[in-house]
Amino acid sequence: MTQIGRRARAAGRILALSAGGTRDDALRAMAAAVRESSEAILTANAQDLTAAREAGLGPALIDRLTLTPGRIDGIAAALEEIAALPDPIGAVMAAWERPNGLKIERVRVPLGVIGVIYESRPNVTADAGALCLKAGNAVVLRGGSDSFNSSTAIHAALMKGLRSARLPEDAIQYVPTRDRAAVGAMLAGLEGNLDVIVPRGGRSLVARVQNEARVPVFAHLDGNVHVYVHGPCELETARGVVMNAKLRRTGICGAAETLLVDRKLAPTHLAPLVKALLDAGCAVRGDGDTQQVDPRVTAATEDDWATEFLDAIIAVKVVEGLDDAIRHIERYGSHHTDAILTDDAEAAERFLREVDSAIVMVNASTQFADGGEFGFGGEIGIATGRFHARGPVGVEQLTSFNYRVRGTGQTRP
Amino acid sequence: MTQIGRRARAAGRILALSAGGTRDDALRAMAAAVRESSEAILTANAQDLTAAREAGLGPALIDRLTLTPGRIDGIAAALEEIAALPDPIGAVMAAWERPNGLKIERVRVPLGVIGVIYESRPNVTADAGALCLKAGNAVVLRGGSDSFNSSTAIHAALMKGLRSARLPEDAIQYVPTRDRAAVGAMLAGLEGNLDVIVPRGGRSLVARVQNEARVPVFAHLDGNVHVYVHGPCELETARGVVMNAKLRRTGICGAAETLLVDRKLAPTHLAPLVKALLDAGCAVRGDGDTQQVDPRVTAATEDDWATEFLDAIIAVKVVEGLDDAIRHIERYGSHHTDAILTDDAEAAERFLREVDSAIVMVNASTQFADGGEFGFGGEIGIATGRFHARGPVGVEQLTSFNYRVRGTGQTRP
Repeated sequence: MTQIGRRARAAGRILALSAGGTRDDALRAMAAAVRESSEAILTANAQDLTAAREAGLGPALIDRLTLTPGRIDGIAAALEEIAALPDPIGAVMAAWERPNGLKIERVRVPLGVIGVIYESRPNVTADAGALCLKAGNAVVLRGGSDSFNSSTAIHAALMKGLRSARLPEDAIQYVPTRDRAAVGAMLAGLEGNLDVIVPRGGRSLVARVQNEARVPVFAHLDGNVHVYVHGPCELETARGVVMNAKLRRTGICGAAETLLVDRKLAPTHLAPLVKALLDAGCAVRGDGDTQQVDPRVTAATEDDWATEFLDAIIAVKVVEGLDDAIRHIERYGSHHTDAILTDDAEAAERFLREVDSAIVMVNASTQFADGGEFGFGGEIGIATGRFHARGPVGVEQLTSFNYRVRGTGQTRP
Repeated sequence: MTQIGRRARAAGRILALSAGGTRDDALRAMAAAVRESSEAILTANAQDLTAAREAGLGPALIDRLTLTPGRIDGIAAALEEIAALPDPIGAVMAAWERPNGLKIERVRVPLGVIGVIYESRPNVTADAGALCLKAGNAVVLRGGSDSFNSSTAIHAALMKGLRSARLPEDAIQYVPTRDRAAVGAMLAGLEGNLDVIVPRGGRSLVARVQNEARVPVFAHLDGNVHVYVHGPCELETARGVVMNAKLRRTGICGAAETLLVDRKLAPTHLAPLVKALLDAGCAVRGDGDTQQVDPRVTAATEDDWATEFLDAIIAVKVVEGLDDAIRHIERYGSHHTDAILTDDAEAAERFLREVDSAIVMVNASTQFADGGEFGFGGEIGIATGRFHARGPVGVEQLTSFNYRVRGTGQTRP
């Protein structure tokens, strides 16, 4: 692992000075290599799937692990999309001139070396590698042991792309071991050669990384997402957004977990919203008011308000107005994504200003909490910390900056 | 300390929702209170000075600790300057619309709770408190025990300002103990209630904070600053910049510590630059070429290239061109501030692009490495990390952001 860290640092220095066009050439060559290697990747994936079935992995994990020709084409297409994004490196973020004639620029530079620790999804190998490379960073990838063969085969295709663009292969290193000690070395920062860690996976992985990492972490532990139906708002609109926010996909971090309905709107909106959820197969755990609405509603416990179900379950509560809703969200929420549904512009602006979450929304499904949907061209994750990156972490968030000062011989008085 | 952390978090929430004008009112009232309390502050300072002299503190430390009516007026004026800066909070940093009609804004919000650990300078109490407040953050100040009485008196004036603007006094807490355990509690993050720590003081303080802090740190350990005379450049200009970079003030982090002179320029520029430094009382530690120039030059050791002297001492080396200079800076430097002197635009641009320091300069004194000189209206320090803040840390760097999304009922397909 010491060697991996040193090689990553050296490669990062070369990437930082490389042309954006060269990195894009590498990304396009990677896409071609992934398509050409489709058969080899599927063979490796079959090995992983056999082992996973023998180990008794559940159907959700098996699905995450499974590659198909279509999914492999999706991996290649994502590489091409990242290649097509504008080069973030060298962009002048701000420029100004001082009264003494000094011209100061703030310019985007790579962050350095990024560590990604992930679980069973083999596509992360390509996605994370490509996003880091795009921003001029070296990356150390540590995938889950379940997807070891699949990730190794994908990584081989990435190496072809780097070679064809004459970039160092050490730019994207895949930790060649199933040894758990490798994770510990990454959490310790690879002896100063790792600048940030991005965990991609379940809550226990993220918690371990957040607790043990000695370097900054881009992550969110929970996405306990709220939708607050404040009103006035048309029932049809509210129903559409609530159903989408909860049920479009229940396993993603932007999925709604708690529905808050304003007391003044409850007579008209509570029952139809709850029934729509129940009829669609969503379990509803409600407060006293909500339990009145339908016998299928079970009683919500204190824990339910703070739980990210990641399933077809929702907690529902009637609140006594905007302040009560904001208080509830600040108390139980996870500062990830929260939304208000209202045609009252003043209430909307207060919600946007006062809810302290990475993403706050008005009249939109919380499932838009995603780097791609934000127009970032992909994301390496969503961060709920307040440092450096917050919300979707795309290519721009994987950069740092420096100041470039141009003078004509100025001295400080 | 647990209570201090909790109170800071609660105050931070109030500050985050306060109007910028209210915080500015508080800052102006603080300035007035500092001026009105001048006598009480001087009395407290006299107590600290008596104790410091009895403890045998050196003249440099005594000078840093000493307040005068003029210095107190300077503290008040700095508060007024910070009040006059634009409010960073609520500023829209970027705004765009997605094809589906979602309007997305990235808006500046406070960072949260900032911890400042500093040594003997009592003015940091006011400066750091004011910069944090300006950006809507609560702050926990832990000053040096030598300046305890002075800082307590200044802090009392800040409390008057907060009260007059009806902001919570917990917005600026001064740790009321000389107990060293308080520092440990801050480094541990006050049980999740501290978001960042800023150490202000000597190398050992910064090293301890960087090694032990469990929260992010804005700091630089060393300012091993280089001036590289590449040429062509007029000798007069080079001499002016080099003398200013080294000797204007030798104790600040932007002071030059190593002078690199290009081989092709050495015949005309090396001797005059070295002699000017020697004649001004600066010790010169040189490589073989530099030792030939003047008998007063002593031999530089390997350590000298990596040392921040913070004194009238400079290491001088002849380098074999731009690549050699950049290699030297990357090997021995501290990624703080480095400058090239040249009229060759191509060489200048390569230096700006390839030297990986927080601040890179062309044809200007490195002593401009300062938030005030950058136009930031003051700084809480200079950071050499690559995360969040890099270079001078002013009011804007003490903020975070979130995304505000306005829709009309959009759902994700």
